[in-house]
Amino acid sequence: MNLLIETVAEISPLDETAMAAARDHQARMTKPPGSLGALEDLSVRLAGLAGECPPPLPEPAAVAVFAGDHGVHARGVTPWPQEVTAQMVQNFLAGGAVVNAFAKQVGAEVLVVDVGVAAELAPAAGLLRRKVARGSADFTAGPAMSGEQTAAALGVGIEVARDLVAAGNRCLVTGDMGIANTTASAALICAFTGADPAEATGRGTGVDATTYARKVDVVCQGLALHGPDPSDPVGVLAAIGGFEHAALAGFILGAAAHRVPVILDGVIAGAAALAACALAPEALGACIAGHRSKEPGHGITLDHLGLRPLIGLELRLGEGTGALLSVPIVQSAARAVREVATFDSAGVTDKS
Amino acid sequence: MNLLIETVAEISPLDETAMAAARDHQARMTKPPGSLGALEDLSVRLAGLAGECPPPLPEPAAVAVFAGDHGVHARGVTPWPQEVTAQMVQNFLAGGAVVNAFAKQVGAEVLVVDVGVAAELAPAAGLLRRKVARGSADFTAGPAMSGEQTAAALGVGIEVARDLVAAGNRCLVTGDMGIANTTASAALICAFTGADPAEATGRGTGVDATTYARKVDVVCQGLALHGPDPSDPVGVLAAIGGFEHAALAGFILGAAAHRVPVILDGVIAGAAALAACALAPEALGACIAGHRSKEPGHGITLDHLGLRPLIGLELRLGEGTGALLSVPIVQSAARAVREVATFDSAGVTDKS
Repeated sequence: MNLLIETVAEISPLDETAMAAARDHQARMTKPPGSLGALEDLSVRLAGLAGECPPPLPEPAAVAVFAGDHGVHARGVTPWPQEVTAQMVQNFLAGGAVVNAFAKQVGAEVLVVDVGVAAELAPAAGLLRRKVARGSADFTAGPAMSGEQTAAALGVGIEVARDLVAAGNRCLVTGDMGIANTTASAALICAFTGADPAEATGRGTGVDATTYARKVDVVCQGLALHGPDPSDPVGVLAAIGGFEHAALAGFILGAAAHRVPVILDGVIAGAAALAACALAPEALGACIAGHRSKEPGHGITLDHLGLRPLIGLELRLGEGTGALLSVPIVQSAARAVREVATFDSAGVTDKS
Repeated sequence: MNLLIETVAEISPLDETAMAAARDHQARMTKPPGSLGALEDLSVRLAGLAGECPPPLPEPAAVAVFAGDHGVHARGVTPWPQEVTAQMVQNFLAGGAVVNAFAKQVGAEVLVVDVGVAAELAPAAGLLRRKVARGSADFTAGPAMSGEQTAAALGVGIEVARDLVAAGNRCLVTGDMGIANTTASAALICAFTGADPAEATGRGTGVDATTYARKVDVVCQGLALHGPDPSDPVGVLAAIGGFEHAALAGFILGAAAHRVPVILDGVIAGAAALAACALAPEALGACIAGHRSKEPGHGITLDHLGLRPLIGLELRLGEGTGALLSVPIVQSAARAVREVATFDSAGVTDKS
């Protein structure tokens, strides 16, 4: 737990001086005031996070895909067999998944982290083997993870963020893989936001009506059994979360502690961000919502956190795909403040 | 007019065979069906445009910024002086504008085309001097352009598209610069869609209430004077359009004739796309709406064309900025179909 406590202690508010300088500079750039829309607030936040104006370019970017399995899989919440988690990890490592294609397009490195896959995974390039356990336990029968396991997974995420930043990355991107992880995400979202399970639970990667009803029931059972207390975020993660959720929460905290932006993917990252921001509210300053997923729980999460997604294309794949699409947008927001001339410097007449 | 007639004749429908192959391939890719949301339709369209599956990667990209001045500027429709058009062209050429920053971020070339700037522009690297006239005429007093001028500007756009494709570009992006060009855009949108000027006219790059009322009135006067007939698109452009609108319409037609996608920026490109699609309805197959601008006429235009914008961040800058932000999204959509493994090839179990 020491690493978690130290990391939370390092997280501080956005720098108001740098944000004021960025707002002032935006007003003098050769463009009508406000004409960059949501990118203006975004670049101001990037300046506040970095503590300098102009903000540094958030590149290179790296996506960390945290993979884990889920005990609730046994309850029949998804049509996908559990072994698909490990199979997709192999697909990531072979470069054959959508996350690989999108990462290549935007120039991001892909790091796959086994934090709780049920199957044993052989060493491979691009795979970080930090398995805490062979999948979580069924949260309708007991806690998904022990307190020690949860702390270990949080630590993995913190260390991955630290190491990616140490390697020179200046934009972190969340990725995830875990068959049944939208079920745990729905439970976490209900615990942290008070949402109704029937509203927060989605159809994930394609479930029929019967499976969907069972999925909602499983979420309800988990909440009823544990009565998770949002003021104890580690306890909530342990009770109803998954290894990738805990690791992603640590990853977000690590990014915030290093004052590097972290682009959140969809509903799994959103659930993790709820935990991270419950542990350290100022971690929100590092969080950028890369996209709005089609999963209903994601909208609830973004509203709760007050984050505006950069893209809304009805993706619901996970892996980090939606967040990766927004990497160039985040980089463009910073680049504009860094490179665009002012009315004075360019000799352009300001409007009368 | 021969170039226009030949170009229109070259435009043909999307290739149904390639689109069917792309849909079939999407269903076998290692992802849940439909999980790439709007990108699935986009990649199917790219395959249909190219006539092959997988579609070619739409890169490199180039943005052509067509610049022109407007006679209606004299009517007081904007607080910006007319010389800002030429000043901003110099800013583009010096690399100091937002379009330059965004183009650099997404790896796109910037070509500035003087098709109707009022001021004389000296030769410069990155500037194509194809001035048809020193600005359009005031459309509340007579036609904005002669028929010959309109045809010449259309031809400039067709030739710029042809030359950029010949130079190896596989993704064209529309850009524009022209103080007062949102006024002409509103008039064109009303003419082609039947929209009410009060609904289609926006505040452009920041006008106050008095100026806004005058701007709506100017649009109404232009429509009343010319009674533009949408079945005569060249006539509509001549009556109430601008040189950059005509050139952009030609650029869109040229892209469609060469079967290369053209990413549309905001309301100026949208108005030009209405003209292009009125001339050749199948040109729509090459058009991708890069973003949804904050200008109200843009939403009307996208609805009329049936285009779904890829990004909605309330930009209202023009120059090609919104379209450039979506370049990596378009490229990612194609890349996914080209590079992602199938369930069979990756040894991943499909859902039960």
